[in-house]
Amino acid sequence: MKDAMEFFQQSTGRWRSQRTTHHLAFKRAEPGESQIEVEALAADHPKVIEICQLHEVDPSLAIGGAYVAWHGSMAWDKDDENHQGSTVFALIPDAETPRRGTLLRERGYAEIVPVAGQYHIDDEDGLVLTTEYETMSSTERFWFANPDLRMRTSTVKRFGGFSTATFCTETRIAETSDAEAPAAESTKYFSYFGW
Amino acid sequence: MKDAMEFFQQSTGRWRSQRTTHHLAFKRAEPGESQIEVEALAADHPKVIEICQLHEVDPSLAIGGAYVAWHGSMAWDKDDENHQGSTVFALIPDAETPRRGTLLRERGYAEIVPVAGQYHIDDEDGLVLTTEYETMSSTERFWFANPDLRMRTSTVKRFGGFSTATFCTETRIAETSDAEAPAAESTKYFSYFGW
Repeated sequence: MKDAMEFFQQSTGRWRSQRTTHHLAFKRAEPGESQIEVEALAADHPKVIEICQLHEVDPSLAIGGAYVAWHGSMAWDKDDENHQGSTVFALIPDAETPRRGTLLRERGYAEIVPVAGQYHIDDEDGLVLTTEYETMSSTERFWFANPDLRMRTSTVKRFGGFSTATFCTETRIAETSDAEAPAAESTKYFSYFGW
Repeated sequence: MKDAMEFFQQSTGRWRSQRTTHHLAFKRAEPGESQIEVEALAADHPKVIEICQLHEVDPSLAIGGAYVAWHGSMAWDKDDENHQGSTVFALIPDAETPRRGTLLRERGYAEIVPVAGQYHIDDEDGLVLTTEYETMSSTERFWFANPDLRMRTSTVKRFGGFSTATFCTETRIAETSDAEAPAAESTKYFSYFGW
């Protein structure tokens, strides 16, 4: 992969995600699932330009972005947790190292303010993303096992200690198949991309 | 990490592993847990020399090895599946690239014959291991989130298609604490290292 846009071009489409969160302190595993829609956006897309302006970054530095929508559910959801949604973000590569840069997003999960994360493509073509929030930080790694199977691990630190580790296996939904009915509930899962 | 031995030196000790296997065709997640003991072995350890001789490799090429013992259980085990055990392996780095090489093991899971895998340390200090068996292949990646938290993902292909994806979070058991009683059953989980 030459840059992170290639990752989002490969991600474009609809995906079914099977997720397990390991709660480290409790030694419990929580299952979940969600459906995700990803669309790569060109650098001159109005939404990409808008995100750059929101972060006060020159839009001409963006190589593109993506639109992501999701709805999902986790086993331990309470009735009032319904967090389906969508987000848009923009990619600003470092000048010297195109496989490394900053990801700008319109809004965070816990926060209402815009959030920026640091990304790089590692030598296995995995996309590694680290995000610092006010009381937590997350490290996510996304990679393709094949063009129709994407995987993801993420760890969340709260107050300096690891609290959860999550694994997702994401299978592409063929364009010809009908979408499954959306799950009734979704979860407050900390992922920079939303899904 | 300068080479794979450093990974096994960091792994030395006792670990509690929380595991989830995603069965991709069935969209089901199977939980499991195990306890693991790892001991790094020096290059001149008699067991390392013995493994090299078994594979007809010059023992002077080995940089060391490891002893691994495990016992565990998976939710879907049948009563007669009891696979606790131990294994020993030796590390033979490539002459030109010390972070890459061959891992020799005394025996496989499905097979009785000795098994060799290819390893490398990636630029995130993850240990990536690929092993080809007769009707399947596996890719495993192990990394440390911190010195007391090791993580692992693995995928198994059978007849060319992905069948399972597994995620393990492994927590170091402090030397002063008592070991938990071993689980009554263990599983036929395909990991090169055994655990």
